[in-house]
Amino acid sequence: MVKFLNKLHLKPAQLIVSFYLLAVIVSTILLSLPIALKPGVSWSFVDVVFTAASAVSVTGLSVVPIVDTFSTTGIFILMFVLQFGGIGIMTLGTFIWLLLRKRIGLKERQLIMTDQNQTNLSGLVTLMKQILGIILLIEFFGALILGTYFLNYFPTWQEAYLQGLFASVSATTNAGFDITGDSLIPFANDYFVQFVTILLLTLGAIGFPVLIELKSYILDKKKMRHHFSLYTKLTVITFFSLMVFGTLAILVFEANHFLSGKSWHESFFYAFFQSATTRNGGLATMDVSQFSEATLLIICLLMFIGASPSSVGGGVRTTTFAVNILMLISFARGHKKIRVFGRQLHEEDERKSVIVTLLAILICFSATVILSAIEPFTTLQILFEVCSAFGTTGLSMGITADLSTVGKLIIISLMFIGRIGILSFILLFNRRNRDVSYDNPKERVIIG
Amino acid sequence: MVKFLNKLHLKPAQLIVSFYLLAVIVSTILLSLPIALKPGVSWSFVDVVFTAASAVSVTGLSVVPIVDTFSTTGIFILMFVLQFGGIGIMTLGTFIWLLLRKRIGLKERQLIMTDQNQTNLSGLVTLMKQILGIILLIEFFGALILGTYFLNYFPTWQEAYLQGLFASVSATTNAGFDITGDSLIPFANDYFVQFVTILLLTLGAIGFPVLIELKSYILDKKKMRHHFSLYTKLTVITFFSLMVFGTLAILVFEANHFLSGKSWHESFFYAFFQSATTRNGGLATMDVSQFSEATLLIICLLMFIGASPSSVGGGVRTTTFAVNILMLISFARGHKKIRVFGRQLHEEDERKSVIVTLLAILICFSATVILSAIEPFTTLQILFEVCSAFGTTGLSMGITADLSTVGKLIIISLMFIGRIGILSFILLFNRRNRDVSYDNPKERVIIG
Ligand SMILES: [K+]
Ligand SMILES: [K+]
Repeated sequence: MVKFLNKLHLKPAQLIVSFYLLAVIVSTILLSLPIALKPGVSWSFVDVVFTAASAVSVTGLSVVPIVDTFSTTGIFILMFVLQFGGIGIMTLGTFIWLLLRKRIGLKERQLIMTDQNQTNLSGLVTLMKQILGIILLIEFFGALILGTYFLNYFPTWQEAYLQGLFASVSATTNAGFDITGDSLIPFANDYFVQFVTILLLTLGAIGFPVLIELKSYILDKKKMRHHFSLYTKLTVITFFSLMVFGTLAILVFEANHFLSGKSWHESFFYAFFQSATTRNGGLATMDVSQFSEATLLIICLLMFIGASPSSVGGGVRTTTFAVNILMLISFARGHKKIRVFGRQLHEEDERKSVIVTLLAILICFSATVILSAIEPFTTLQILFEVCSAFGTTGLSMGITADLSTVGKLIIISLMFIGRIGILSFILLFNRRNRDVSYDNPKERVIIG
Repeated sequence: MVKFLNKLHLKPAQLIVSFYLLAVIVSTILLSLPIALKPGVSWSFVDVVFTAASAVSVTGLSVVPIVDTFSTTGIFILMFVLQFGGIGIMTLGTFIWLLLRKRIGLKERQLIMTDQNQTNLSGLVTLMKQILGIILLIEFFGALILGTYFLNYFPTWQEAYLQGLFASVSATTNAGFDITGDSLIPFANDYFVQFVTILLLTLGAIGFPVLIELKSYILDKKKMRHHFSLYTKLTVITFFSLMVFGTLAILVFEANHFLSGKSWHESFFYAFFQSATTRNGGLATMDVSQFSEATLLIICLLMFIGASPSSVGGGVRTTTFAVNILMLISFARGHKKIRVFGRQLHEEDERKSVIVTLLAILICFSATVILSAIEPFTTLQILFEVCSAFGTTGLSMGITADLSTVGKLIIISLMFIGRIGILSFILLFNRRNRDVSYDNPKERVIIG
């Protein structure tokens, strides 16, 4: 496999896309197998592709109810696809991060991957094994805890542990699929299940480099001299800030609406869970379409921002958002350089973060316009679906199954872009990755 | 006046805000005068302030029907306010442009304006006289042509020329107010009036520096060696590209909707006029709420982009949008520097353009969320109103008059920000406009 890939001389972006497309094709075939389906179930080809794309990108948007469509074998196949999809995203994301740590530019990074494929693809395999190890460990404990706890809920131990395993895999990979038939709504009052789920979601979405740094911190005896990377500080703080912001926003906007008449702990857990799930989980303890417009717009924003880079999540990523905000603050203060945690951000990272954000906004806006033209839903329902697909979050106001075929294809494309990331997406169209050497005279224009 | 202002030692941003607030206060007083109102009209204080803010920022959003509220004297007062507002915006915008041509940075520009107020405020007055001259000339010919033509429409010559004068002033300043009681809908089939209006709108919104360069080009005998500035090329091309894009978008999205069953010339003029008016006019030849969701979203985008800098218009401005698009293209091509028309853009302008865009998006999004929470309208209706206010465009899906007092205050704030521009808005909060001199170690993070 590695040798075969070396011979193809693929660029990183092409490699990522090839893997993704291959994974979708294989998943489509697997999920079409009669053995995967419950007796009597038949579904359209576009729906199979949609489910495969949603599973590989661990988005969790679903055009069919999983529990009514798949046999137990099918559910295991689905879990395998989620596993592969989640770990694939994490591996490729982390790989790029490792290359970045060598402080080399985008151009050099690409050259290395083209010319020294051998080393790097081997490195990729080693990395994937590491990630697989950590993820399986998390999922095992998740399944054990949830499965055992589910003995209270389900009649047989088989069903309890199957539900526990699926819930653990779906949460850790942030897939957002459910086999309860109704997301986590059956556990709306079970704070233990919600707490464990949020923990698993967070471990999956916080980013592999953070987990590695955390592990080495825990194993390190001399903690005082331990140094967390700027990346880890930035993404962790942004991650949890967004969680807190989302929780507060839901509490405020829903106080007289969905949360009206609910106790403080019910209110808190509804707000906290639905905020945490936007980081990338896509599970929900209530029907999100019951939220007010203001809350739904905030959730759109949170899904659009998404999870940490090098995690199972999508969106523009937490660091991108953080750098944008830091840029605004620096500019308002009249600073030319961005300083944070005693470090200075690289201009190239500033540039990338705005490019990613602007292009992401442009793509999501265009998708919303086109879907508005061809689908009968409200702008907010469509925007919500678009942000959910781009962020590979998987929350929905309930329109997924009713989309037209073209609509489904657009959502599939968004899940694809959200999964591979905007930067990889741009590099796909970048044929000659070199700058022209001459300088033109500079001239100023008026801005804003 | 100039001497008095010199003594205050105001920063440019403070100067702009002071002028704006003063203008709103004076306009509020003028528009409250009993002589300005038709007999029996009484309106709430917030509505007077709203109308004054809308007139000073030449937005044209209106909580009351102008024709039913104001006496002929009131209409003349309103025209005076529009005149003052439009010319004020143009003058201050152009002034900043002139300072920029000296290739000095933001910091130096501010220092000059603080320390050498005398020179600059005198310069400001000279500039204002020039702009006043050009605008009055355009308006005079506009009023003459439209007024004479309106003799066909109105019973008396007084009414025809009053309508012509108001239409000309409202179009040239891009104010978007109307005294027909129904915008330009009565002229939906009169292509002559629409053509003249579009011409006047364009002259007002294309930017004063463009008019100056055009004038010197026309007066220049040796045209071959004439050199247009990068700014002029960029803003003119963007301006007309947006017009064409808007026209095509409306033709496509409305083909089976609003334009269904209409002749080609009717379709073209409906599409062309409604596209042109988003550059900043705010007049309309039909009820825009009849458009489909997709078209309305496109109009939101066009209003958000707005007009040229140093024009009567608002929004993020055409150049800002153009630089953003050029950045995306450059990045995708792997270029570090942005080249256009044989020139290279300044990094500082790139940085400004993304800051302006990101902050504008953040402000409009926040306003949409807050208005969604307190108003009973759909997200699209609210987003449309927000973009219209920020772009100082003045189109509306018809909710302006029904906004709550808090809602009206938010729209007033958006018109204010859209009018003074995002850059000036940021500088308001910029107390110490200097960079810290030490360097922190740089560290990379993962983006997107
Ligand atoms: K998900
Ligand atoms: K206007």
